[in-house]
Amino acid sequence: MRARGMAPLDLESGRVDMTHGAGGRAMTQLIDQVFAAAFDNPLLAQANDQACFEPPPGRLALATDTFVVTPRFFPGGDIGAMAVHGTVNDIAMGGARPLYLTAGFVIEDGLPLSELRRIVRSMADAASQAGVAVVGGDTKVVGRGQCDGLYINTTGLGVIADPAIRISGDRARPGDAILINGPIGDHGVAVMASRENLAFETPILSDSAALNGLVAAMLDAVPEVRVLRDPTRGGLAATLNELAHQSAVGMDLDEAAIPVRAAVRGACELLGLDPLNVANEGKLVAICPPERADDLLAVMRAHPLGRDAARIGTVTGEANRYVTLTTRLGGRRIVDWLAGPQLPRIC
Amino acid sequence: MRARGMAPLDLESGRVDMTHGAGGRAMTQLIDQVFAAAFDNPLLAQANDQACFEPPPGRLALATDTFVVTPRFFPGGDIGAMAVHGTVNDIAMGGARPLYLTAGFVIEDGLPLSELRRIVRSMADAASQAGVAVVGGDTKVVGRGQCDGLYINTTGLGVIADPAIRISGDRARPGDAILINGPIGDHGVAVMASRENLAFETPILSDSAALNGLVAAMLDAVPEVRVLRDPTRGGLAATLNELAHQSAVGMDLDEAAIPVRAAVRGACELLGLDPLNVANEGKLVAICPPERADDLLAVMRAHPLGRDAARIGTVTGEANRYVTLTTRLGGRRIVDWLAGPQLPRIC
Repeated sequence: MRARGMAPLDLESGRVDMTHGAGGRAMTQLIDQVFAAAFDNPLLAQANDQACFEPPPGRLALATDTFVVTPRFFPGGDIGAMAVHGTVNDIAMGGARPLYLTAGFVIEDGLPLSELRRIVRSMADAASQAGVAVVGGDTKVVGRGQCDGLYINTTGLGVIADPAIRISGDRARPGDAILINGPIGDHGVAVMASRENLAFETPILSDSAALNGLVAAMLDAVPEVRVLRDPTRGGLAATLNELAHQSAVGMDLDEAAIPVRAAVRGACELLGLDPLNVANEGKLVAICPPERADDLLAVMRAHPLGRDAARIGTVTGEANRYVTLTTRLGGRRIVDWLAGPQLPRIC
Repeated sequence: MRARGMAPLDLESGRVDMTHGAGGRAMTQLIDQVFAAAFDNPLLAQANDQACFEPPPGRLALATDTFVVTPRFFPGGDIGAMAVHGTVNDIAMGGARPLYLTAGFVIEDGLPLSELRRIVRSMADAASQAGVAVVGGDTKVVGRGQCDGLYINTTGLGVIADPAIRISGDRARPGDAILINGPIGDHGVAVMASRENLAFETPILSDSAALNGLVAAMLDAVPEVRVLRDPTRGGLAATLNELAHQSAVGMDLDEAAIPVRAAVRGACELLGLDPLNVANEGKLVAICPPERADDLLAVMRAHPLGRDAARIGTVTGEANRYVTLTTRLGGRRIVDWLAGPQLPRIC
């Protein structure tokens, strides 16, 4: 809908400026012609400062994430699609079906409107593919040098219809199997390579993807799954250390079983990174009772986003909550989480 | 809870740095010692990437807002309390009781930890006073010059238990009464004065406040309320124009009835502002059938946040959706919304 007296924005060569955040006519133009045009759905069309709806039956899951990745376009993705995938995944990792997203934009004065529209359309496509609706939003414009182009917060609401589903980071038990849905490190290496203008023989693409379909298939087949978490910032190492701490268990990983693409391994060597510490945006760790691991692995491998799924380790009763790795050579080392920064603004 | 091997942060003289956003040990320190310490509640203590809960019966309302106000501390408030009030109010304006908030932080490298803690504590106090829990969050740290100190997104979820409550910006009808809960312009003038180091004889404080208690009292007494909206960015003029457009009605305001503090009026003259365009953070516009206006006004005036409530105008059938003002001198002028910027980064 175009409001009274609203001229079309110059979406080809115009730029966002301070008027687009000022609560007046220009902001309404931007919202109508860029955001509402892309995200169009009945709840957003309520055009109130809140979306109101009847919830489906079940427990609810609420999650938030802010995206500051640089560059905004990288091999395999962009900040818009990633802002949808990231929050959809946080909802899915609670065993929930994502329903609705809100989107909060902080935009730097001067951002080309064409770029904003491209990012917003990418968000809308990602939301549509994931089966979620963007039902509310907010736009702030800040001055030059007060933001690096564009930051996006998304917050998601999902529903857990089946009361038998109880996923939580504190439910890992000694003996449980640790699974992952595919190779690690793709996202971090893709972004880093793009940022540093590195070219590899085999192009490395971000794995940015919505995992809710995969999770639904997994929980349909194996409702006994105890833990799901996506190893984003800090990589697999940080995620497993968090889970070990939360469940008061140890973990032992089998280095040879952890999938890493050859190109990613090579790039990590070049960049001085350990793939275990590198961010992912389309991966999940699943922990389940050992007797259900084979079934779960089969379901994961049958899904396009789990073709290279693997069982990578076992939960232990180790009292210090250490995550250890049995190396290809048969040695064992502790997998710690990093104290310092690795890749800033990776997500 | 302090995680394994986590040393205490230097909350007196330390600063946020890039490690606090990197997904590792330092981020866990920051989350445990600043955020979890202040927001402590059972859902946050789940320590998962999503909060899971049984919703109370009723329709739900979901709203998001991002806060970039500068300066971060101003007379009568700060960015932290305001980030709670703003989203609580957006939920309340749907006629809903706010339940839960999420909080997403974008922090500039170098922000003093003491300041961050002060802001987070202010958020926690505001949330506690409003009766909402902060159940999830996210922290990103960006480099110097990539954010102006701190931006906060909050997203809120609320419930509308009474199916008779139907609040929406498209429900204003010709003849309806337009009410406001108190004087306009305080927030914008307080922030502007603080930014420009202006001193007034009477100090002007932001009206930043959570309006959910007031709204609950109003809807208890007068469930026939048709529209609620908080006139924030763009002020009363922008909000009424939005509502006129949404409901396809006109509005006529009585200038003499619109409460404006003398100090705010004086400051606006000095600064070249019209109070109608100045942002508020603790005000609401209510539109109700004319026969319920007196009752509603009485309930509003009985509440501490509505003592100076007033009936300021009437909805009309004017076909062009114009908002007009009958001046003190008996003239009439159109109240338009601003095309350009007024006060950037006011909320």
